[in-house]
Amino acid sequence: MRNWLLPEFVEDILPAEAIHIEGMRRQIIDLLMVHGYQQVVPPLLEYVESLLTGSGSDMDLHMFKVIDQLSGRMMGLRADMTPQVARIDAHLLNFEGITRLCYANSVLHTAPAGITKTREPLQVGAELYGHSGLESDLEIQRLMLQCLTVSGVSAIQLDLGHVAVFRGLIKGAGISHELEAELYAVLQAKDVSTLQELCVDLQKQTREALLLLPELYGDHKVLADAASRLPDYREIRAALNELSIAKEELKPIVDEIAFDLADLRGYHYHTGMVFAAYTSGCSNAIALGGRYDEIGKAFGRARPATGFSMDLRELSRLMKPQSYPKAISAPYQKKNTELENKIEQLRKVGQIVVVELPGQKGKSLDCDRELILHDGQWIVKKI
Amino acid sequence: MRNWLLPEFVEDILPAEAIHIEGMRRQIIDLLMVHGYQQVVPPLLEYVESLLTGSGSDMDLHMFKVIDQLSGRMMGLRADMTPQVARIDAHLLNFEGITRLCYANSVLHTAPAGITKTREPLQVGAELYGHSGLESDLEIQRLMLQCLTVSGVSAIQLDLGHVAVFRGLIKGAGISHELEAELYAVLQAKDVSTLQELCVDLQKQTREALLLLPELYGDHKVLADAASRLPDYREIRAALNELSIAKEELKPIVDEIAFDLADLRGYHYHTGMVFAAYTSGCSNAIALGGRYDEIGKAFGRARPATGFSMDLRELSRLMKPQSYPKAISAPYQKKNTELENKIEQLRKVGQIVVVELPGQKGKSLDCDRELILHDGQWIVKKI
Repeated sequence: MRNWLLPEFVEDILPAEAIHIEGMRRQIIDLLMVHGYQQVVPPLLEYVESLLTGSGSDMDLHMFKVIDQLSGRMMGLRADMTPQVARIDAHLLNFEGITRLCYANSVLHTAPAGITKTREPLQVGAELYGHSGLESDLEIQRLMLQCLTVSGVSAIQLDLGHVAVFRGLIKGAGISHELEAELYAVLQAKDVSTLQELCVDLQKQTREALLLLPELYGDHKVLADAASRLPDYREIRAALNELSIAKEELKPIVDEIAFDLADLRGYHYHTGMVFAAYTSGCSNAIALGGRYDEIGKAFGRARPATGFSMDLRELSRLMKPQSYPKAISAPYQKKNTELENKIEQLRKVGQIVVVELPGQKGKSLDCDRELILHDGQWIVKKI
Repeated sequence: MRNWLLPEFVEDILPAEAIHIEGMRRQIIDLLMVHGYQQVVPPLLEYVESLLTGSGSDMDLHMFKVIDQLSGRMMGLRADMTPQVARIDAHLLNFEGITRLCYANSVLHTAPAGITKTREPLQVGAELYGHSGLESDLEIQRLMLQCLTVSGVSAIQLDLGHVAVFRGLIKGAGISHELEAELYAVLQAKDVSTLQELCVDLQKQTREALLLLPELYGDHKVLADAASRLPDYREIRAALNELSIAKEELKPIVDEIAFDLADLRGYHYHTGMVFAAYTSGCSNAIALGGRYDEIGKAFGRARPATGFSMDLRELSRLMKPQSYPKAISAPYQKKNTELENKIEQLRKVGQIVVVELPGQKGKSLDCDRELILHDGQWIVKKI
């Protein structure tokens, strides 16, 4: 067994990619910061109970667990940062008004979410707590799109959905929790034949609406279709109205908007509009989010909340491969103040200057220029 | 059990501290980068065998372990990044000349290293591979001091040691491996009475030298003392010479230099000069490093190496508590291009502008100014 083999779906980030990810990370944090989102850094591990609240409940199987030798209790390595940030909002900050938080750190998964995925996503995201109106959904959606743009993603498709469409149908038709869970599962799996079987004994209106849901995917015509063919329940009408406003507001800043009214991702915790961004060359969503109003409940403080997150490792892979910036090679000379000043000047403006140590053969890695003495002046010359 | 309680020695980093640490992290990475140190990001977990090589061998007890459900093998959560960076140098980059790498990421410890320590240090450091001369030790020591300075640490004391002093004594006196291990342990524990017992049967010259070691702590006089009172072995002479040169070279950029010839930290893997930085208000070293020439051996490539690391969480705690920058509160107005442009302008120059969403009571957190319309112009006014 060779010691340098890494586990599957676990990888090193080497310099050319590291500098690229570092740049994206800084731009996103700076962008979020000037919009009022304050960065927090929750711990990599904490008690399993805290990590599995709210949106974390789907995460149990994906979470590595270790025993805390100080308390004997089970700790988890975070598989998602959302429950941690909700804990910070609910308990530590405990501010009555709107709180805006952001984060950029690694999470760990016991198994990759797909064959092209890593087990160590670098999760970056923002959360807005304390506001239940559509304005906060729009703020978060705009920010997600801006974060993708500053990261260099072009041609973004935004998919919008709304869990209140399905939830409204269930409530309006008085469907039991058991059947709701089964319907949810087959809709998620896009398993239309089982869906038909489950709907057999339902009223005609409800049956037709449920069977229609998987077809309600596509451009803005979906909204008109849904409005005319789904039952006229207040909850559904409100959801379709929110989607329609979001379309108008976001149209100017995104290439394409699509709707998916059967998108029930995170149905257990999402409570309103859900959204995902796609780009060419990647079948997975490159960023996603949604409203989840009960998130802080387990921490004693249910607050309206909406947020988004993305994986910078995945995003970086989608971009053109970057090369590491070239350096300037400088000779090693003891107590040469002029040379030292010149090197310091160059470094101050961001140039990489490598001092060649005595005994080294040839130039250092990645140097395309060198510092040489010319007419009594230190100048930079191409190699 | 309240869900928001964190495990002991595990903590959230809240906004005021997060922005401070983020700033230090960026300045250090930028500083290292312009000196030719390329950033790498090794994974948070990998097979235990890889993590326990070289400097990692002391880490076994400090490392959390999990089973990889894809391979059935044991994985560790890194407790130190040095073995990972050595693996990258040895295997992935495999460059013949000098390689300079740096990193800034979290590591995890099963138990804190001290009662004031965290179990999740944010380890930042640099490593220089492929050069065995004193020049590389000096480059690394200078960089460590510069990193502390850009982080805002003043009044630094640098402690220098050299494992070749003790090693030279052991070799010169032909002491067995068993006794060497015992002597090492008592010297580390500064247990002088047991040291005396262990030395009883040794030759007078060796006994006196070993008993002298714990006293060889202090300013430059220590070097003269050591030169005159320790046996005149080639290895010891060379070590004292290196320490003397380092003192002269570093004197201009550090407040105080002290020597500790009984400092055997990392004796299992260190092979040359070792160093640690201290500052007032903290009894632990705030940064440390040393030479460890055999580091890549387990990965099939023993290379000379020297490096340093520090914990940004600890460093941040030492600084004056920082407050989060204040924001500008902006009203929510639909389709007001002038207002939107003004907000964008302010954000472009780094100002935090929070848009107050409809229905919110009062201003957002941390606003000390607001955007108001004055004579048809949007201006910033103190609240």
